[in-house]
Amino acid sequence: MKKTERSDNMRLRNVKNSEERLEQSPYFIKDPKEYKGKWNTLFQNQNPIHLEIGTGKGNFLITMAKLYPKINFIGMEKFSSVLLRAIEKVQSEKLSNLYFICEDAKEIQDFFKQEISTIYLNFSDPWPKKRHEKRRLTSKEHLSLYENIFKDEKRIVQKTDNIGLFAYSLEQLSKSGYILNKVSLDLKNEKIPNVLTEYEEKFSQLGFKINYVEAIKDKDS
Amino acid sequence: MKKTERSDNMRLRNVKNSEERLEQSPYFIKDPKEYKGKWNTLFQNQNPIHLEIGTGKGNFLITMAKLYPKINFIGMEKFSSVLLRAIEKVQSEKLSNLYFICEDAKEIQDFFKQEISTIYLNFSDPWPKKRHEKRRLTSKEHLSLYENIFKDEKRIVQKTDNIGLFAYSLEQLSKSGYILNKVSLDLKNEKIPNVLTEYEEKFSQLGFKINYVEAIKDKDS
Repeated sequence: MKKTERSDNMRLRNVKNSEERLEQSPYFIKDPKEYKGKWNTLFQNQNPIHLEIGTGKGNFLITMAKLYPKINFIGMEKFSSVLLRAIEKVQSEKLSNLYFICEDAKEIQDFFKQEISTIYLNFSDPWPKKRHEKRRLTSKEHLSLYENIFKDEKRIVQKTDNIGLFAYSLEQLSKSGYILNKVSLDLKNEKIPNVLTEYEEKFSQLGFKINYVEAIKDKDS
Repeated sequence: MKKTERSDNMRLRNVKNSEERLEQSPYFIKDPKEYKGKWNTLFQNQNPIHLEIGTGKGNFLITMAKLYPKINFIGMEKFSSVLLRAIEKVQSEKLSNLYFICEDAKEIQDFFKQEISTIYLNFSDPWPKKRHEKRRLTSKEHLSLYENIFKDEKRIVQKTDNIGLFAYSLEQLSKSGYILNKVSLDLKNEKIPNVLTEYEEKFSQLGFKINYVEAIKDKDS
């Protein structure tokens, strides 16, 4: 067996295992394409739907879902092994306003259509190299993908400790027609309600400053 | 003599002295109202005019004037005793593209009309208290005052180490229709041409990060 084959097999086996365990959870939606344009039928209400892209281990979204029962939450995470941690945290809870999907942001238009009110981007991968710019979740390309998934007013809320990604995001959001409604370079010392992510909790305790932006764009602008 | 009278007299004597010394300099324009709408006649060319509000001890603008002879520069400073330091620095130089005025930003519309290309705001007073918000040079009120002094495209370039003022400025610029063309939370490590102010030089050496924004607004937007 060649080295590359073995490592491919190991990777696949690992993913397959995570996916099987995900599928056993009522919080996991295996085929989100089925709900495109009609997620409200799954939630069985007309409450606003908030989407977190890169939901990681889920602390932020699970806490949000408990705090705001009149808002529906969907967590999107690319890596099944990471998403499994979120699912495990919530398995003993009974929350009717929370689901998770294991998908890549670049295919977001396959899963949603004119039904999202807010997108959360928490501590996204900064992809600092210029040649990876398109991969940043606030690149022109990604912002363009989000256009059609929003319902009315478009609202993107980002938190990051990475000053390169933050500066880039402010530029891109502004250039794409978003108004920066609220900006902070030290979220901990603001009077903004804030639910911490796992990452944020560690970093904030170490004294690192968290950057925050709430960007808004009118429906037809 | 009452205490208040004495302190008033001291203040006046001090200012008077600075002003007399300012008036002896060919770089100082005593009555800028005379040039409103026709600063190009003073500069004797049609080159773009850049204005620094709060020019302080003048390092930034004097260096800019030497580096960019095809741009005309005006430095505005409220305190005559501070402006005197700028004037003293430049008195042995022969620069035809630089003038200073001793005025308050809130009266800016008395001195300029549709003739400025860029406004620089370097390390402005952050006025951190909410009740002093209007005094910040990027308040809605100040941005509104700047509208009529710009010629074509409006361009505001701000540098500050104060994260509260910076976040506030980004919000206000965005809400007032400016696009954030370039943002940095660590100017020293960017490939942006940068002339240091006195304050910046000290702060940057101490390891403090400098925030930067270049905001642009179309002529008629």
